[in-house]
Amino acid sequence: MGGFPRSFSSGMGGHTSVVKKQQDPPVVHDLRVTLEEVLSGCTKKMKISRKRLNGQTLRKEEKILEVQIKKGWKEGTKITFPKEGDETPTNIPADIVFVLKDKPHPVFKRDGSDIIYTAKISLRDALCGCTVNAPTLDGRTVTVSSTDIVHPGMKRRISGEGLPYPKRPDRRGDLIVEYEVRFPERLTQNARDTIAQVLPRS
Amino acid sequence: MGGFPRSFSSGMGGHTSVVKKQQDPPVVHDLRVTLEEVLSGCTKKMKISRKRLNGQTLRKEEKILEVQIKKGWKEGTKITFPKEGDETPTNIPADIVFVLKDKPHPVFKRDGSDIIYTAKISLRDALCGCTVNAPTLDGRTVTVSSTDIVHPGMKRRISGEGLPYPKRPDRRGDLIVEYEVRFPERLTQNARDTIAQVLPRS
Repeated sequence: MGGFPRSFSSGMGGHTSVVKKQQDPPVVHDLRVTLEEVLSGCTKKMKISRKRLNGQTLRKEEKILEVQIKKGWKEGTKITFPKEGDETPTNIPADIVFVLKDKPHPVFKRDGSDIIYTAKISLRDALCGCTVNAPTLDGRTVTVSSTDIVHPGMKRRISGEGLPYPKRPDRRGDLIVEYEVRFPERLTQNARDTIAQVLPRS
Repeated sequence: MGGFPRSFSSGMGGHTSVVKKQQDPPVVHDLRVTLEEVLSGCTKKMKISRKRLNGQTLRKEEKILEVQIKKGWKEGTKITFPKEGDETPTNIPADIVFVLKDKPHPVFKRDGSDIIYTAKISLRDALCGCTVNAPTLDGRTVTVSSTDIVHPGMKRRISGEGLPYPKRPDRRGDLIVEYEVRFPERLTQNARDTIAQVLPRS
């Protein structure tokens, strides 16, 4: 071999062609779920279309992948179906990856395992006391009363009415009631004068 | 040459040793500036310590790099001093890179080329009208009067009192006065009753 490095030696006689199949990069899809689906967990059927080998010919086919969404899963959770992508004579099919995204909810915002409900109250209610009927994710109503002054942005926490904790789905986060205080558009001069007399200067 | 690729041919006789010098990765430092410095532009003297070749021996030295901060530069702006890092017999010295960061300001927040001043006013002032004396970055005061009701989070824009636009430093962004309405901690029952009479129910 005359001091040649081993890796070149075969090149001088015949040579062995070992083509190592490479896997295509993962194919990533968003999978949008509602907060209600995250609350209870669900199964999503996702139809993919892909190329598969039929002997030596390629044909297009559709396949349904069943994605199990577990209770409380967070945005960004990835579910991988190995090697379910396009197949060719020379590749290893790509993994199909679904990434969880929250669908916007008409009533609640999500904050991890908590959900936030914005209670819009009038300035009158904020100063004189009020009762808010906050909806829950499963369709009930929780009553929250305030006798103290409600400051804008103030929060009340209702324990256990949020989403399941993904690692402890028997326990749930909180429903947070966040107050938005709506001011009147205008006041009469008389009302202003009265308010100026009863409210502190600073 | 018998079909050997060119790059191996010299290895069979003598060989030439060409060691190509590689440059070290850049050395990155934060450079913190005040909003006042961004307003007027400034020169910052930054002392670095580094190793340099003195013939064949290495010695440690300090060097002052003068960084010109131009008017209006934004956080993240990079200033590079090529090849000012450590020198060894086998390397190309690293570039020294300074990355602009805003120092927190006691009065203003920065929003691009605008600056935000939070004016804390009482609920009484929000409802009955008020005058706010907003400071400017260069030490003056701008008077902002409201006769209408001020809602929490409401903004007023004072044109041209912000930071210079980095690409057009003869022009400046705005000073934004953002109102924070402070509610009283408590009210007498008498005050509550009076307010309940004059404020609208919704």
